[in-house]
Amino acid sequence: MVLIGERINCTRKPIREAVERGDTSFLQNEALSQVAAGAQILDVNGGIPGREVETLTGLIDLVQEVTDTGLCLDSADPGALEAALPRCRKKAIINSVTDESERFDALVPLARAYGSGIVALCMGEGGIPRSAADRVSVGSRLVEKLTRAGLSLADIYLDPCVIPVSTDSFQGPSLLQAISELRERFPGVKISCGLSNVSFGLPSRKLLNRVFLGMLMSHGMDAVIADPLDCELMAQLHAARALLGQDEYCTEYLEAFRGGRLLS
Amino acid sequence: MVLIGERINCTRKPIREAVERGDTSFLQNEALSQVAAGAQILDVNGGIPGREVETLTGLIDLVQEVTDTGLCLDSADPGALEAALPRCRKKAIINSVTDESERFDALVPLARAYGSGIVALCMGEGGIPRSAADRVSVGSRLVEKLTRAGLSLADIYLDPCVIPVSTDSFQGPSLLQAISELRERFPGVKISCGLSNVSFGLPSRKLLNRVFLGMLMSHGMDAVIADPLDCELMAQLHAARALLGQDEYCTEYLEAFRGGRLLS
Repeated sequence: MVLIGERINCTRKPIREAVERGDTSFLQNEALSQVAAGAQILDVNGGIPGREVETLTGLIDLVQEVTDTGLCLDSADPGALEAALPRCRKKAIINSVTDESERFDALVPLARAYGSGIVALCMGEGGIPRSAADRVSVGSRLVEKLTRAGLSLADIYLDPCVIPVSTDSFQGPSLLQAISELRERFPGVKISCGLSNVSFGLPSRKLLNRVFLGMLMSHGMDAVIADPLDCELMAQLHAARALLGQDEYCTEYLEAFRGGRLLS
Repeated sequence: MVLIGERINCTRKPIREAVERGDTSFLQNEALSQVAAGAQILDVNGGIPGREVETLTGLIDLVQEVTDTGLCLDSADPGALEAALPRCRKKAIINSVTDESERFDALVPLARAYGSGIVALCMGEGGIPRSAADRVSVGSRLVEKLTRAGLSLADIYLDPCVIPVSTDSFQGPSLLQAISELRERFPGVKISCGLSNVSFGLPSRKLLNRVFLGMLMSHGMDAVIADPLDCELMAQLHAARALLGQDEYCTEYLEAFRGGRLLS
Protein backbone atom coordinates (compact mmCIF):
# COMPACT_ATOMS: atom_id res chain seq x y z
CA MET A 1 0.00 0.00 0.00
CA VAL A 2 1.35 3.37 -1.05
CA LEU A 3 -0.06 6.31 0.88
CA ILE A 4 -0.07 9.57 -1.11
CA GLY A 5 -0.46 12.54 1.24
CA GLU A 6 -3.17 14.88 -0.04
CA ARG A 7 -2.73 17.98 2.09
CA ILE A 8 -0.61 20.29 -0.10
CA ASN A 9 -3.50 21.29 -2.30
CA CYS A 10 -4.33 24.87 -3.23
CA THR A 11 -8.05 24.11 -3.36
CA ARG A 12 -7.73 23.82 0.44
CA LYS A 13 -8.10 27.25 2.03
CA PRO A 14 -5.17 27.06 4.53
CA ILE A 15 -2.80 26.04 1.75
CA ARG A 16 -4.00 28.69 -0.69
CA GLU A 17 -3.66 31.35 2.00
CA ALA A 18 -0.18 30.17 2.95
CA VAL A 19 0.84 30.32 -0.71
CA GLU A 20 -0.62 33.82 -1.03
CA ARG A 21 1.25 35.16 2.00
CA GLY A 22 4.43 33.28 0.99
CA ASP A 23 4.46 31.25 4.22
CA THR A 24 7.21 28.80 3.33
CA SER A 25 7.56 27.32 6.79
CA PHE A 26 3.84 26.50 7.03
CA LEU A 27 3.96 24.76 3.67
CA GLN A 28 7.20 22.90 4.43
CA ASN A 29 5.73 21.79 7.72
CA GLU A 30 2.74 20.34 5.84
CA ALA A 31 5.23 18.28 3.84
CA LEU A 32 7.31 17.17 6.82
CA SER A 33 4.38 16.24 9.03
CA GLN A 34 2.81 14.10 6.30
CA VAL A 35 6.07 12.25 5.74
CA ALA A 36 6.51 11.75 9.49
CA ALA A 37 2.98 10.33 9.66
CA GLY A 38 3.72 7.77 6.97
CA ALA A 39 3.10 9.33 3.53
CA GLN A 40 5.37 7.70 0.95
CA ILE A 41 4.49 10.22 -1.78
CA LEU A 42 3.23 13.81 -1.50
CA ASP A 43 0.52 15.10 -3.78
CA VAL A 44 1.11 18.73 -4.79
CA ASN A 45 -1.71 20.80 -6.29
CA GLY A 46 -0.94 24.36 -7.36
CA GLY A 47 -4.36 25.06 -8.81
CA ILE A 48 -4.72 28.80 -8.28
CA PRO A 49 -6.44 30.11 -11.44
CA GLY A 50 -4.07 32.03 -13.69
CA ARG A 51 -1.04 31.24 -11.50
CA GLU A 52 -0.75 27.48 -11.65
CA VAL A 53 2.69 27.31 -13.31
CA GLU A 54 4.46 29.51 -10.76
CA THR A 55 2.49 28.06 -7.83
CA LEU A 56 3.15 24.43 -8.70
CA THR A 57 6.85 24.95 -9.41
CA GLY A 58 7.22 27.06 -6.27
CA LEU A 59 5.59 24.38 -4.13
CA ILE A 60 7.76 21.65 -5.64
CA ASP A 61 10.91 23.61 -4.91
CA LEU A 62 10.07 24.35 -1.30
CA VAL A 63 8.86 20.81 -0.57
CA GLN A 64 12.08 19.37 -2.03
CA GLU A 65 14.11 21.67 0.19
CA VAL A 66 12.95 19.70 3.23
CA THR A 67 12.23 16.16 2.01
CA ASP A 68 13.27 13.78 -0.75
CA THR A 69 9.87 12.05 -0.83
CA GLY A 70 8.49 11.44 -4.34
CA LEU A 71 5.88 13.86 -5.65
CA CYS A 72 2.53 13.43 -7.32
CA LEU A 73 1.81 16.43 -9.54
CA ASP A 74 -1.89 17.12 -9.26
CA SER A 75 -2.63 19.00 -12.47
CA ALA A 76 -4.20 18.49 -15.87
CA ASP A 77 -2.47 21.56 -17.32
CA PRO A 78 0.28 20.52 -19.76
CA GLY A 79 2.06 23.84 -19.31
CA ALA A 80 2.24 23.53 -15.53
CA LEU A 81 3.40 19.91 -15.78
CA GLU A 82 6.02 20.75 -18.39
CA ALA A 83 7.44 23.38 -16.06
CA ALA A 84 7.17 21.15 -12.99
CA LEU A 85 8.47 17.78 -14.19
CA PRO A 86 12.10 18.81 -14.84
CA ARG A 87 12.33 20.22 -11.30
CA CYS A 88 11.39 16.90 -9.66
CA ARG A 89 14.47 15.20 -8.28
CA LYS A 90 12.78 11.80 -8.05
CA LYS A 91 10.47 9.93 -10.39
CA ALA A 92 7.17 11.85 -10.23
CA ILE A 93 3.58 10.82 -10.83
CA ILE A 94 1.28 12.85 -13.06
CA ASN A 95 -2.22 13.14 -11.55
CA SER A 96 -4.12 12.63 -13.82
CA VAL A 97 -5.00 11.54 -17.31
CA THR A 98 -8.42 10.29 -18.45
CA ASP A 99 -9.72 8.53 -21.54
CA GLU A 100 -10.61 11.94 -23.04
CA SER A 101 -8.40 12.32 -26.10
CA GLU A 102 -7.37 15.95 -25.70
CA ARG A 103 -6.13 15.42 -22.14
CA PHE A 104 -4.63 12.02 -22.96
CA ASP A 105 -2.71 13.30 -25.96
CA ALA A 106 -1.36 16.30 -24.06
CA LEU A 107 -0.21 14.51 -20.90
CA VAL A 108 0.95 11.03 -21.89
CA PRO A 109 3.93 12.27 -23.96
CA LEU A 110 5.08 14.19 -20.85
CA ALA A 111 4.92 11.03 -18.72
CA ARG A 112 6.88 9.24 -21.44
CA ALA A 113 9.48 11.99 -21.78
CA TYR A 114 10.13 12.31 -18.04
CA GLY A 115 9.71 8.64 -17.13
CA SER A 116 6.88 9.54 -14.72
CA GLY A 117 4.15 7.42 -13.30
CA ILE A 118 0.64 8.47 -14.26
CA VAL A 119 -2.74 8.31 -12.53
CA ALA A 120 -5.35 7.21 -15.08
CA LEU A 121 -8.91 8.01 -14.05
CA CYS A 122 -11.39 5.48 -15.42
CA MET A 123 -13.51 8.10 -17.14
CA GLY A 124 -13.95 9.06 -20.76
CA GLU A 125 -15.79 11.52 -22.95
CA GLY A 126 -19.05 10.23 -21.44
CA GLY A 127 -18.06 11.14 -17.87
CA ILE A 128 -17.53 8.73 -14.96
CA PRO A 129 -18.88 5.22 -15.52
CA ARG A 130 -21.24 4.04 -12.79
CA SER A 131 -21.33 0.26 -13.21
CA ALA A 132 -18.44 -2.06 -12.39
CA ALA A 133 -18.46 -3.37 -15.97
CA ASP A 134 -18.15 0.13 -17.46
CA ARG A 135 -15.36 1.05 -15.03
CA VAL A 136 -13.48 -2.12 -16.02
CA SER A 137 -14.05 -1.43 -19.69
CA VAL A 138 -12.75 2.16 -19.53
CA GLY A 139 -9.87 1.05 -17.27
CA SER A 140 -8.88 -1.73 -19.65
CA ARG A 141 -8.92 0.64 -22.62
CA LEU A 142 -6.72 3.07 -20.71
CA VAL A 143 -4.17 0.39 -19.81
CA GLU A 144 -4.05 -0.69 -23.44
CA LYS A 145 -3.60 2.89 -24.74
CA LEU A 146 -0.99 3.78 -22.10
CA THR A 147 1.13 0.70 -22.74
CA ARG A 148 0.81 1.25 -26.50
CA ALA A 149 2.09 4.80 -25.87
CA GLY A 150 5.18 3.28 -24.26
CA LEU A 151 4.40 3.37 -20.53
CA SER A 152 5.18 0.33 -18.43
CA LEU A 153 2.43 -1.35 -16.38
CA ALA A 154 4.22 -0.51 -13.14
CA ASP A 155 3.95 3.21 -13.93
CA ILE A 156 0.17 3.13 -14.30
CA TYR A 157 -2.01 4.07 -11.31
CA LEU A 158 -5.50 3.10 -12.43
CA ASP A 159 -8.17 5.04 -10.49
CA PRO A 160 -11.68 3.57 -10.88
CA CYS A 161 -13.23 6.86 -9.62
CA VAL A 162 -14.95 7.02 -6.26
CA ILE A 163 -18.48 8.47 -6.42
CA PRO A 164 -20.24 9.60 -3.20
CA VAL A 165 -22.58 6.92 -1.82
CA SER A 166 -24.92 9.76 -0.82
CA THR A 167 -25.77 10.22 -4.50
CA ASP A 168 -26.13 6.53 -5.35
CA SER A 169 -26.26 3.67 -2.81
CA PHE A 170 -24.66 1.17 -5.17
CA GLN A 171 -21.49 3.10 -5.97
CA GLY A 172 -19.64 1.36 -3.13
CA PRO A 173 -20.22 -2.21 -4.37
CA SER A 174 -19.72 -1.11 -7.99
CA LEU A 175 -16.31 0.35 -7.19
CA LEU A 176 -15.19 -2.63 -5.09
CA GLN A 177 -16.17 -5.06 -7.83
CA ALA A 178 -14.37 -2.98 -10.44
CA ILE A 179 -11.21 -3.06 -8.31
CA SER A 180 -11.39 -6.85 -7.91
CA GLU A 181 -11.79 -7.32 -11.65
CA LEU A 182 -9.08 -4.83 -12.64
CA ARG A 183 -6.75 -6.37 -10.05
CA GLU A 184 -7.23 -9.80 -11.60
CA ARG A 185 -6.97 -8.59 -15.17
CA PHE A 186 -3.88 -6.39 -14.68
CA PRO A 187 -1.76 -7.72 -11.81
CA GLY A 188 1.09 -5.43 -12.93
CA VAL A 189 -0.69 -2.06 -12.66
CA LYS A 190 -1.29 -0.15 -9.47
CA ILE A 191 -4.86 0.60 -8.46
CA SER A 192 -5.33 3.88 -6.64
CA CYS A 193 -8.26 5.87 -5.29
CA GLY A 194 -8.99 9.28 -3.89
CA LEU A 195 -10.64 8.15 -0.69
CA SER A 196 -12.61 11.09 0.62
CA ASN A 197 -15.08 11.50 -2.27
CA VAL A 198 -16.99 8.48 -1.00
CA SER A 199 -18.36 10.35 2.02
CA PHE A 200 -19.27 13.63 0.30
CA GLY A 201 -22.67 14.89 1.45
CA LEU A 202 -22.82 12.77 4.63
CA PRO A 203 -21.95 13.49 8.27
CA SER A 204 -19.05 11.77 10.08
CA ARG A 205 -17.14 11.66 6.81
CA LYS A 206 -13.91 10.43 8.38
CA LEU A 207 -15.69 7.36 9.74
CA LEU A 208 -16.93 6.45 6.25
CA ASN A 209 -13.52 7.15 4.72
CA ARG A 210 -11.66 4.88 7.08
CA VAL A 211 -14.14 2.01 6.83
CA PHE A 212 -13.98 2.29 3.05
CA LEU A 213 -10.17 2.25 3.14
CA GLY A 214 -10.12 -1.28 4.60
CA MET A 215 -12.71 -2.49 2.11
CA LEU A 216 -10.77 -1.03 -0.84
CA MET A 217 -7.50 -2.55 0.35
CA SER A 218 -9.14 -5.94 0.82
CA HIS A 219 -10.26 -5.85 -2.82
CA GLY A 220 -6.80 -5.08 -4.16
CA MET A 221 -6.31 -1.31 -4.09
CA ASP A 222 -2.63 -0.59 -3.57
CA ALA A 223 -2.35 3.19 -3.50
CA VAL A 224 -4.56 5.78 -1.87
CA ILE A 225 -4.63 9.57 -1.83
CA ALA A 226 -5.60 10.52 1.71
CA ASP A 227 -4.71 12.59 4.76
CA PRO A 228 -1.91 10.92 6.77
CA LEU A 229 -2.55 13.32 9.68
CA ASP A 230 -5.91 11.63 10.27
CA CYS A 231 -4.75 9.45 13.19
CA GLU A 232 -7.74 7.14 13.17
CA LEU A 233 -7.35 6.55 9.46
CA MET A 234 -3.70 5.67 10.00
CA ALA A 235 -4.55 3.29 12.87
CA GLN A 236 -7.03 1.61 10.56
CA LEU A 237 -4.41 1.44 7.80
CA HIS A 238 -1.96 -0.33 10.14
CA ALA A 239 -4.70 -2.78 11.14
CA ALA A 240 -5.72 -3.37 7.52
CA ARG A 241 -2.15 -4.16 6.51
CA ALA A 242 -1.83 -6.65 9.38
CA LEU A 243 -5.15 -8.28 8.45
CA LEU A 244 -4.28 -8.56 4.75
CA GLY A 245 -0.89 -10.21 5.10
CA GLN A 246 0.92 -7.03 4.03
CA ASP A 247 2.78 -6.75 7.33
CA GLU A 248 4.69 -9.95 8.01
CA TYR A 249 4.55 -11.05 11.66
CA CYS A 250 2.49 -7.87 12.22
CA THR A 251 5.80 -6.11 12.82
CA GLU A 252 4.66 -2.63 11.79
CA TYR A 253 1.35 -3.07 13.59
CA LEU A 254 3.16 -3.89 16.83
CA GLU A 255 5.54 -0.98 16.30
CA ALA A 256 2.58 1.38 15.79
CA PHE A 257 1.04 0.00 18.98
CA ARG A 258 4.21 0.59 20.97
CA GLY A 259 4.39 4.11 19.50
CA GLY A 260 0.85 4.83 20.71
CA ARG A 261 -0.40 5.21 17.14
CA LEU A 262 -3.23 2.67 17.30
CA LEU A 263 -5.22 4.92 19.65
CA SER A 264 -7.50 2.24 21.08
CA MET B 1 -26.35 -8.07 7.83
CA VAL B 2 -27.52 -9.99 10.85
CA LEU B 3 -25.76 -9.13 14.09
CA ILE B 4 -25.70 -11.99 16.60
CA GLY B 5 -24.89 -10.68 20.09
CA GLU B 6 -22.15 -12.75 21.69
CA ARG B 7 -22.17 -11.62 25.29
CA ILE B 8 -24.31 -14.26 27.06
CA ASN B 9 -21.56 -16.85 27.10
CA CYS B 10 -20.57 -18.84 30.15
CA THR B 11 -16.96 -19.00 29.04
CA ARG B 12 -16.93 -15.25 29.90
CA LYS B 13 -16.19 -14.80 33.57
CA PRO B 14 -18.86 -12.17 34.40
CA ILE B 15 -21.56 -14.35 32.86
CA ARG B 16 -20.41 -17.55 34.55
CA GLU B 17 -20.30 -15.75 37.89
CA ALA B 18 -23.75 -14.26 37.37
CA VAL B 19 -25.09 -17.73 36.57
CA GLU B 20 -23.43 -19.16 39.65
CA ARG B 21 -24.90 -16.56 41.97
CA GLY B 22 -28.29 -16.73 40.20
CA ASP B 23 -28.18 -13.06 39.24
CA THR B 24 -31.17 -13.00 36.91
CA SER B 25 -31.30 -9.23 36.53
CA PHE B 26 -27.64 -9.01 35.47
CA LEU B 27 -28.20 -11.68 32.84
CA GLN B 28 -31.47 -10.19 31.61
CA ASN B 29 -29.78 -6.83 31.36
CA GLU B 30 -27.08 -8.38 29.16
CA ALA B 31 -29.91 -9.52 26.86
CA LEU B 32 -31.76 -6.21 26.86
CA SER B 33 -28.71 -4.02 26.34
CA GLN B 34 -27.55 -6.09 23.37
CA VAL B 35 -30.97 -5.86 21.74
CA ALA B 36 -31.11 -2.11 22.40
CA ALA B 37 -27.67 -1.77 20.78
CA GLY B 38 -28.85 -3.51 17.61
CA ALA B 39 -28.43 -7.30 18.04
CA GLN B 40 -31.04 -9.11 15.94
CA ILE B 41 -30.24 -12.52 17.45
CA LEU B 42 -28.72 -13.41 20.84
CA ASP B 43 -26.14 -16.15 21.16
CA VAL B 44 -26.56 -18.15 24.38
CA ASN B 45 -23.76 -20.38 25.64
CA GLY B 46 -24.37 -22.39 28.79
CA GLY B 47 -21.07 -24.23 28.73
CA ILE B 48 -20.38 -24.88 32.40
CA PRO B 49 -18.85 -28.37 32.55
CA GLY B 50 -21.30 -30.93 33.94
CA ARG B 51 -24.15 -28.41 34.14
CA GLU B 52 -24.72 -27.40 30.53
CA VAL B 53 -28.31 -28.70 30.22
CA GLU B 54 -29.67 -26.81 33.20
CA THR B 55 -27.56 -23.72 32.51
CA LEU B 56 -28.54 -23.43 28.85
CA THR B 57 -32.25 -24.01 29.50
CA GLY B 58 -32.20 -21.61 32.45
CA LEU B 59 -30.54 -18.89 30.37
CA ILE B 60 -33.03 -19.36 27.54
CA ASP B 61 -35.97 -19.03 29.91
CA LEU B 62 -34.75 -15.88 31.58
CA VAL B 63 -33.72 -14.22 28.31
CA GLN B 64 -37.15 -14.96 26.81
CA GLU B 65 -38.82 -13.39 29.84
CA VAL B 66 -37.51 -9.98 28.73
CA THR B 67 -37.15 -10.14 24.95
CA ASP B 68 -38.60 -12.00 21.98
CA THR B 69 -35.36 -11.79 19.98
CA GLY B 70 -34.37 -15.04 18.24
CA LEU B 71 -31.73 -17.20 19.93
CA CYS B 72 -28.59 -18.88 18.71
CA LEU B 73 -27.87 -21.94 20.87
CA ASP B 74 -24.12 -22.14 21.26
CA SER B 75 -23.55 -25.80 22.04
CA ALA B 76 -22.34 -28.99 20.42
CA ASP B 77 -23.98 -31.17 23.09
CA PRO B 78 -26.99 -32.98 21.61
CA GLY B 79 -28.49 -33.43 25.11
CA ALA B 80 -28.35 -29.72 25.91
CA LEU B 81 -29.77 -28.82 22.51
CA GLU B 82 -32.55 -31.38 22.80
CA ALA B 83 -33.57 -29.83 26.11
CA ALA B 84 -33.18 -26.26 24.84
CA LEU B 85 -34.82 -26.31 21.42
CA PRO B 86 -38.41 -26.99 22.55
CA ARG B 87 -38.22 -24.01 24.93
CA CYS B 88 -37.35 -21.53 22.16
CA ARG B 89 -40.42 -19.51 21.22
CA LYS B 90 -38.97 -18.40 17.90
CA LYS B 91 -36.99 -20.21 15.24
CA ALA B 92 -33.58 -20.86 16.79
CA ILE B 93 -30.13 -21.37 15.30
CA ILE B 94 -27.90 -24.27 16.38
CA ASN B 95 -24.28 -23.15 16.77
CA SER B 96 -22.64 -25.30 15.46
CA VAL B 97 -22.17 -28.37 13.33
CA THR B 98 -18.95 -29.32 11.49
CA ASP B 99 -18.07 -31.81 8.79
CA GLU B 100 -17.08 -34.31 11.51
CA SER B 101 -19.52 -37.18 11.17
CA GLU B 102 -20.26 -37.80 14.86
CA ARG B 103 -21.19 -34.18 15.48
CA PHE B 104 -22.99 -33.85 12.16
CA ASP B 105 -25.10 -36.97 12.68
CA ALA B 106 -26.06 -35.94 16.21
CA LEU B 107 -27.04 -32.33 15.52
CA VAL B 108 -28.53 -32.17 12.05
CA PRO B 109 -31.58 -34.30 12.90
CA LEU B 110 -32.32 -31.84 15.73
CA ALA B 111 -32.20 -28.88 13.31
CA ARG B 112 -34.48 -30.80 11.01
CA ALA B 113 -36.91 -31.77 13.79
CA TYR B 114 -37.20 -28.25 15.23
CA GLY B 115 -36.94 -26.31 11.95
CA SER B 116 -33.87 -24.49 13.26
CA GLY B 117 -31.17 -22.70 11.41
CA ILE B 118 -27.69 -24.14 11.81
CA VAL B 119 -24.19 -22.68 11.83
CA ALA B 120 -21.92 -24.96 9.81
CA LEU B 121 -18.22 -24.48 10.54
CA CYS B 122 -16.05 -25.18 7.50
CA MET B 123 -13.93 -27.76 9.30
CA GLY B 124 -13.75 -31.51 9.12
CA GLU B 125 -11.94 -34.46 10.66
CA GLY B 126 -8.67 -32.85 9.55
CA GLY B 127 -9.28 -29.65 11.54
CA ILE B 128 -9.69 -26.12 10.15
CA PRO B 129 -8.64 -25.70 6.53
CA ARG B 130 -6.11 -22.92 5.98
CA SER B 131 -6.31 -22.20 2.27
CA ALA B 132 -9.27 -20.53 0.56
CA ALA B 133 -9.67 -23.54 -1.74
CA ASP B 134 -9.87 -25.99 1.19
CA ARG B 135 -12.38 -23.76 3.02
CA VAL B 136 -14.55 -23.63 -0.09
CA SER B 137 -14.27 -27.35 -0.56
CA VAL B 138 -15.31 -28.19 3.02
CA GLY B 139 -18.04 -25.54 2.88
CA SER B 140 -19.43 -26.89 -0.37
CA ARG B 141 -19.49 -30.43 1.03
CA LEU B 142 -21.35 -29.19 4.10
CA VAL B 143 -23.98 -27.37 2.04
CA GLU B 144 -24.49 -30.49 -0.02
CA LYS B 145 -24.80 -32.74 3.04
CA LEU B 146 -27.11 -30.34 4.89
CA THR B 147 -29.48 -29.89 1.97
CA ARG B 148 -29.46 -33.65 1.37
CA ALA B 149 -30.45 -34.02 5.03
CA GLY B 150 -33.47 -31.82 4.36
CA LEU B 151 -32.35 -28.34 5.47
CA SER B 152 -33.12 -25.38 3.24
CA LEU B 153 -30.31 -23.13 2.00
CA ALA B 154 -31.76 -20.15 3.89
CA ASP B 155 -31.30 -22.05 7.19
CA ILE B 156 -27.58 -22.64 6.66
CA TYR B 157 -25.09 -20.20 8.22
CA LEU B 158 -21.79 -21.22 6.64
CA ASP B 159 -18.84 -20.15 8.81
CA PRO B 160 -15.48 -20.30 6.99
CA CYS B 161 -13.60 -20.19 10.34
CA VAL B 162 -11.57 -17.15 11.32
CA ILE B 163 -7.98 -17.98 12.34
CA PRO B 164 -5.85 -15.37 14.17
CA VAL B 165 -3.58 -13.42 11.82
CA SER B 166 -0.98 -13.46 14.59
CA THR B 167 -0.43 -17.16 13.87
CA ASP B 168 -0.41 -16.88 10.07
CA SER B 169 -0.25 -13.62 8.10
CA PHE B 170 -2.23 -15.03 5.17
CA GLN B 171 -5.31 -16.14 7.06
CA GLY B 172 -7.01 -12.80 6.41
CA PRO B 173 -6.79 -12.95 2.59
CA SER B 174 -7.54 -16.69 2.65
CA LEU B 175 -10.77 -16.15 4.57
CA LEU B 176 -11.89 -13.18 2.44
CA GLN B 177 -11.31 -15.12 -0.75
CA ALA B 178 -13.22 -18.12 0.63
CA ILE B 179 -16.16 -15.85 1.47
CA SER B 180 -16.21 -14.34 -2.04
CA GLU B 181 -16.19 -17.80 -3.61
CA LEU B 182 -18.80 -19.31 -1.27
CA ARG B 183 -20.99 -16.22 -1.77
CA GLU B 184 -20.86 -16.70 -5.53
CA ARG B 185 -21.37 -20.45 -5.41
CA PHE B 186 -24.24 -20.43 -2.89
CA PRO B 187 -26.19 -17.17 -3.12
CA GLY B 188 -28.95 -18.72 -1.02
CA VAL B 189 -26.96 -19.58 2.11
CA LYS B 190 -25.93 -17.14 4.80
CA ILE B 191 -22.24 -16.67 5.49
CA SER B 192 -21.39 -15.93 9.10
CA CYS B 193 -18.21 -15.44 11.12
CA GLY B 194 -17.13 -15.17 14.71
CA LEU B 195 -15.25 -11.90 14.42
CA SER B 196 -12.97 -11.67 17.41
CA ASN B 197 -10.75 -14.69 16.73
CA VAL B 198 -8.94 -12.73 14.05
CA SER B 199 -7.19 -10.50 16.59
CA PHE B 200 -6.22 -13.17 19.12
CA GLY B 201 -2.66 -12.66 20.36
CA LEU B 202 -2.35 -9.02 19.24
CA PRO B 203 -2.83 -5.71 21.06
CA SER B 204 -5.69 -3.29 20.23
CA ARG B 205 -7.89 -6.24 19.35
CA LYS B 206 -11.03 -4.16 18.93
CA LEU B 207 -9.35 -2.06 16.23
CA LEU B 208 -8.50 -5.20 14.25
CA ASN B 209 -11.97 -6.64 14.78
CA ARG B 210 -13.77 -3.60 13.48
CA VAL B 211 -11.52 -3.14 10.44
CA PHE B 212 -12.01 -6.82 9.62
CA LEU B 213 -15.78 -6.46 9.96
CA GLY B 214 -15.94 -4.00 7.04
CA MET B 215 -13.69 -6.20 4.92
CA LEU B 216 -15.78 -9.31 5.62
CA MET B 217 -19.03 -7.51 4.81
CA SER B 218 -17.58 -6.17 1.57
CA HIS B 219 -16.79 -9.73 0.49
CA GLY B 220 -20.30 -11.01 1.14
CA MET B 221 -20.51 -12.03 4.82
CA ASP B 222 -24.09 -11.49 5.98
CA ALA B 223 -24.11 -12.53 9.64
CA VAL B 224 -21.57 -11.89 12.37
CA ILE B 225 -21.22 -12.98 15.97
CA ALA B 226 -19.88 -9.96 17.81
CA ASP B 227 -20.33 -7.61 20.76
CA PRO B 228 -23.05 -5.02 20.03
CA LEU B 229 -21.99 -3.01 23.09
CA ASP B 230 -18.71 -2.16 21.35
CA CYS B 231 -19.76 1.34 20.23
CA GLU B 232 -16.95 1.82 17.75
CA LEU B 233 -17.72 -1.53 16.16
CA MET B 234 -21.36 -0.51 15.80
CA ALA B 235 -20.42 2.87 14.30
CA GLN B 236 -18.26 1.01 11.79
CA LEU B 237 -21.13 -1.39 11.07
CA HIS B 238 -23.48 1.52 10.28
CA ALA B 239 -20.83 3.03 8.01
CA ALA B 240 -20.19 -0.31 6.29
CA ARG B 241 -23.88 -0.80 5.56
CA ALA B 242 -24.10 2.70 4.06
CA LEU B 243 -20.99 2.08 1.94
CA LEU B 244 -22.21 -1.30 0.67
CA GLY B 245 -25.67 -0.24 -0.50
CA GLN B 246 -27.35 -2.09 2.40
CA ASP B 247 -28.87 1.09 3.79
CA GLU B 248 -30.93 2.82 1.13
CA TYR B 249 -30.51 6.61 1.10
CA CYS B 250 -28.20 6.06 4.12
CA THR B 251 -31.32 6.34 6.28
CA GLU B 252 -30.04 4.24 9.18
CA TYR B 253 -26.63 5.86 9.00
CA LEU B 254 -28.17 9.32 9.32
CA GLU B 255 -30.40 8.11 12.15
CA ALA B 256 -27.35 6.73 13.97
CA PHE B 257 -25.60 10.06 13.44
CA ARG B 258 -28.54 12.00 14.88
CA GLY B 259 -28.62 9.57 17.82
CA GLY B 260 -24.93 10.26 18.54
CA ARG B 261 -23.99 6.67 17.74
CA LEU B 262 -21.33 7.37 15.12
CA LEU B 263 -18.98 8.80 17.76
CA SER B 264 -16.75 10.82 15.41
